[in-house]
Amino acid sequence: MERAVAQAAGAGLTGLLVTPGPDLTYFTGYRPTAITERITMLVLDADHDPHLILPVLERGDAAGVPVAITDWADGSDPYPAAARLLDPAGRYAISDSAWAMHLLGLQQALPGASFLAMSSALPMLRAIKGAEEVDRLAAAGAAADATYQEIISVRFEGRTEHQVGTDLAGLLTGHGHSQVDFTVVGSGPNGANPHHEMGDRVIERGDMVVLDFGGLKDGYGSDTTRTVHVGPPTTAEQEIFDVVRRAQETAFAAVRPGVPCQEIDRAARRVIEEAGYGEYFIHRTGHGIGLTTHEPPYLVEGESQVLVPGMCFSIEPGIYLPGRFGVRIEDIVTVTETGGRRLNNTSHALQIVT
Amino acid sequence: MERAVAQAAGAGLTGLLVTPGPDLTYFTGYRPTAITERITMLVLDADHDPHLILPVLERGDAAGVPVAITDWADGSDPYPAAARLLDPAGRYAISDSAWAMHLLGLQQALPGASFLAMSSALPMLRAIKGAEEVDRLAAAGAAADATYQEIISVRFEGRTEHQVGTDLAGLLTGHGHSQVDFTVVGSGPNGANPHHEMGDRVIERGDMVVLDFGGLKDGYGSDTTRTVHVGPPTTAEQEIFDVVRRAQETAFAAVRPGVPCQEIDRAARRVIEEAGYGEYFIHRTGHGIGLTTHEPPYLVEGESQVLVPGMCFSIEPGIYLPGRFGVRIEDIVTVTETGGRRLNNTSHALQIVT
Repeated sequence: MERAVAQAAGAGLTGLLVTPGPDLTYFTGYRPTAITERITMLVLDADHDPHLILPVLERGDAAGVPVAITDWADGSDPYPAAARLLDPAGRYAISDSAWAMHLLGLQQALPGASFLAMSSALPMLRAIKGAEEVDRLAAAGAAADATYQEIISVRFEGRTEHQVGTDLAGLLTGHGHSQVDFTVVGSGPNGANPHHEMGDRVIERGDMVVLDFGGLKDGYGSDTTRTVHVGPPTTAEQEIFDVVRRAQETAFAAVRPGVPCQEIDRAARRVIEEAGYGEYFIHRTGHGIGLTTHEPPYLVEGESQVLVPGMCFSIEPGIYLPGRFGVRIEDIVTVTETGGRRLNNTSHALQIVT
Repeated sequence: MERAVAQAAGAGLTGLLVTPGPDLTYFTGYRPTAITERITMLVLDADHDPHLILPVLERGDAAGVPVAITDWADGSDPYPAAARLLDPAGRYAISDSAWAMHLLGLQQALPGASFLAMSSALPMLRAIKGAEEVDRLAAAGAAADATYQEIISVRFEGRTEHQVGTDLAGLLTGHGHSQVDFTVVGSGPNGANPHHEMGDRVIERGDMVVLDFGGLKDGYGSDTTRTVHVGPPTTAEQEIFDVVRRAQETAFAAVRPGVPCQEIDRAARRVIEEAGYGEYFIHRTGHGIGLTTHEPPYLVEGESQVLVPGMCFSIEPGIYLPGRFGVRIEDIVTVTETGGRRLNNTSHALQIVT
């Protein structure tokens, strides 16, 4: 919390307003049972000790949180109460996922204050992981790798995407995940929708199948993608797959401290564009990962933030051919003093499944 | 969507900005795979057809949504693009749980526009349920009731709260819930924390145990609480239990069209205050329920909105004695033309468990 307050001061901010979610977990370990219309908010600034505002009926839940606590009761207006802890002319960063209704309440109570989104004001607040955090991400990655090693032995042909997705979820849990967040099984044309989750489509021989899965293990995220093929691929399929593989590996090779995030995106995109598939790579190359699956740094055109040792993010280029199939390969990578280290280590080769 | 636009105009609003979550589900049925930092937003106003803005890579997910769609790509700034669909001097209600970062992006792109929280601008937008919605809430309530009927036969003494909570979750799922949102097992002193979920405490003979559980069935919520006792209660325990039961039943009896929400809260609170336990009833009497477990109308002091047939909400007074135990009784109730109808129908008597 002290480091964050110093960073905030360096960015010209009065302080931070931290609401339930990954920011609050990061600072205090506190996770309310549910994130609701009742405001809970941690106030961090240079002039006061950390202070948590919460609904009185959740006071017991926060008993172990090592900060001062002010509670408010149903029927009272919490925003003036919160405003009393803030500088009426202050400039505050507020958690990205704070509810709009809470921000509007604060804006009304403090018309002279200004507010910025945490990720734009302090994008790198949680981006540089400590050694213990990297270890947990590596353990989550290893569990995802073990899941992949097992899923390639299950039957694909004749089963639905949903059945394979259920297998994936069971394996992630079996390998120690407390939470499964997504199990994408994009077979054939469904693979051309990068966010297709899974459906009732029966997987056929000859299908390309995108498998993208992850969740939380010991509080930290996993997220890996491999694309497999049911039976041998055609030459055209193999060629497109190889473009994505080369893009992923080229982007990974570009990782080292001091390189701007957008350069990693450009490295991947260049390979795909030069192969003639640029218009089919319709998303950024990657996103940070930690307590959440998507967080800064983002590997995207326009992001000039440079890589710093301890940053952890995905590298996941893809090609999506509408009506035909998709290919994506994704590893989580951490920045070291000398380059990048993969936290996913299964083979990048096009795996044939049955 | 047409009704909502008319309601918005009646409230002096230019339109509605609807982000992923229950509001978007209500209007379109669309539920993005995840709610993330990438903005998705439905714009509803009187001068244009409904318009959905979403990330290009989620375009496939929204293929069936019957509104115009504008997509935006990673690396572009979505807020100016969204702003082009809005009136620069407009007055918009935005979903309560929209991310603060998105609201801040819109405020920056449209400095002359103003924004209000959906639940303050149009609190009753989803509050009056149609017959089909009431039927679904009734079915969810019946499943919760069946869960209660079975849980009272399990062993409590000598097992942990967590074990009983796992039983509850399994029963809810077994009775058709697609999602279990909470399984409170508050035994002995833990029951005095209204939001205590469950822990490792071993339940003992002589414990009062608060059981509060619910989730989603066919998209609609269940939420019921019964307080049971392991072995026979003391006279003092029974007396306190009876106060809560009387408060719940008195509040229910006050339900009819035209009565302000706060009167239901007052009816429950008066019974508890007159019995001398007012300071131990530390939350509002109830909350609306539908696509979410907590939504307007809130039965709370200061809420002058009157009850209207079709509204559905909890009535859940409680007494919480720190260090000793808690008692809460909760039913979901819907307002009919002539009064209230309970959607939970298990006995209110203090159930003895073993």
